[in-house]
Amino acid sequence: MSLAMTREELSDYLHSVFPQIREDFVIDALEPERIVIRLKTAERHLRPGGTVSGPSMFALADVAVYAMVLARIGRQALAVTTNCSLDFMRKPAADRDVVAECRLLKLGRVLAVGDVLLFSEGSPAPVARASMTYSIPPG
Amino acid sequence: MSLAMTREELSDYLHSVFPQIREDFVIDALEPERIVIRLKTAERHLRPGGTVSGPSMFALADVAVYAMVLARIGRQALAVTTNCSLDFMRKPAADRDVVAECRLLKLGRVLAVGDVLLFSEGSPAPVARASMTYSIPPG
Amino acid sequence: MSLAMTREELSDYLHSVFPQIREDFVIDALEPERIVIRLKTAERHLRPGGTVSGPSMFALADVAVYAMVLARIGRQALAVTTNCSLDFMRKPAADRDVVAECRLLKLGRVLAVGDVLLFSEGSPAPVARASMTYSIPPG
Amino acid sequence: MSLAMTREELSDYLHSVFPQIREDFVIDALEPERIVIRLKTAERHLRPGGTVSGPSMFALADVAVYAMVLARIGRQALAVTTNCSLDFMRKPAADRDVVAECRLLKLGRVLAVGDVLLFSEGSPAPVARASMTYSIPPG
Repeated sequence: MSLAMTREELSDYLHSVFPQIREDFVIDALEPERIVIRLKTAERHLRPGGTVSGPSMFALADVAVYAMVLARIGRQALAVTTNCSLDFMRKPAADRDVVAECRLLKLGRVLAVGDVLLFSEGSPAPVARASMTYSIPPG
Repeated sequence: MSLAMTREELSDYLHSVFPQIREDFVIDALEPERIVIRLKTAERHLRPGGTVSGPSMFALADVAVYAMVLARIGRQALAVTTNCSLDFMRKPAADRDVVAECRLLKLGRVLAVGDVLLFSEGSPAPVARASMTYSIPPG
Repeated sequence: MSLAMTREELSDYLHSVFPQIREDFVIDALEPERIVIRLKTAERHLRPGGTVSGPSMFALADVAVYAMVLARIGRQALAVTTNCSLDFMRKPAADRDVVAECRLLKLGRVLAVGDVLLFSEGSPAPVARASMTYSIPPG
Repeated sequence: MSLAMTREELSDYLHSVFPQIREDFVIDALEPERIVIRLKTAERHLRPGGTVSGPSMFALADVAVYAMVLARIGRQALAVTTNCSLDFMRKPAADRDVVAECRLLKLGRVLAVGDVLLFSEGSPAPVARASMTYSIPPG
């Protein structure tokens, strides 16, 4: 139950494999079974009507679990999402970042599972809930 | 954010509307946004191979969110599950109760959402994760 | 894309590994990427209010995908459900069988995915939809 | 079970409420309980490694069910996704469009449910499966 990378190493690695991540996401906290990642909400993440788009929230939840898994297993860019479920519960604020709090629930040899609560920064009620399964390629 | 029923009232009400629940489930704790319910594991909940069956774990997660919702909205037996997702992560022990820890994530006018972690009693790693959406009938 | 077992062989095998299945489920049809399984609705599957219980519908969807996977990979009782999602859309009739139509969407080396529509026999509108992922143990 | 809009009317309406949709999606077919929508795969939808990104596939599945619902209930831009589940089963081809085949499974007063299979154009095996629930605002 120890991390394979520090927060800085993880951030650098994600930026190298997904250059587009640099502009969108910031890792706020990293612990052995928990990560907090923030979407820096910008015009391109919004939907008409003044809310953060579904694909942007999916992307945030997905990158949170991906980063959590990599932080534990090390640089294996090929881990892939096999399943996700999402509940969209409240309208996210268009003028605030979205903060994802992810728990690592399982890290097996083949499959990893994490769940995520998404919040509009500063509001205590979650805007969405997600769970994600990642398949880990053979070593 | 206050409860409409005490733990005892909720327990009595569940027993009256679902008599079969009496033998299977016990409410261990009840708070305004959290409930803990225990499946008293018995032979009829097991699968060959020595594990708690999937339908029994589904039933436990489902009753946990149902009870949590009723504890808040009061005696409305007609709330119905509209969606669930489950991740089965570890093999539950056949000789121990299964404990469900449920958080109420949303209680809207029409929909309620809760998520649940299931544990074999005494083990810290969850055996399953569930999320459930309930539809609340018009008052 | 060929079957490892006939419908009769599959039925016999399921009965031997899950004796309780014999009373509840009948395989109506089996093709290389499709299976139809029927829940013989009985008193023990019902919920007060006159409908088939959620756990019974979960069990039917789960056994449908399990049987479909075994029909292709042969006698490997240890395949386990890792994920499921269910949408409950209409109230199933208490006085009719529930029929599950399952499609095999993926049969990989490690994971298999199937989806299922559940019908009250004789009604064209599905009462529920399910998708299930099974993890296949190394050979 | 009849359509409230033709394919052309639906396409025009989607373009007016979601201008960004114009460049990404094309409606290939529309029937009372089925819609086919294509993602015109472009550089911005890809992930390093040569595949269509998860958020792009989520967006395609989401817009497919949204368009199907609007085609039936008419111009009500405010329908919102409340739940989705996705199984990612195969790697989509980076040099081909992704085609979404959506079935409308339920169109209730409050909730609508659709499921979707996603294909790399020209390949018979689905790359992903999705189901989506939409909440329909009171008339």
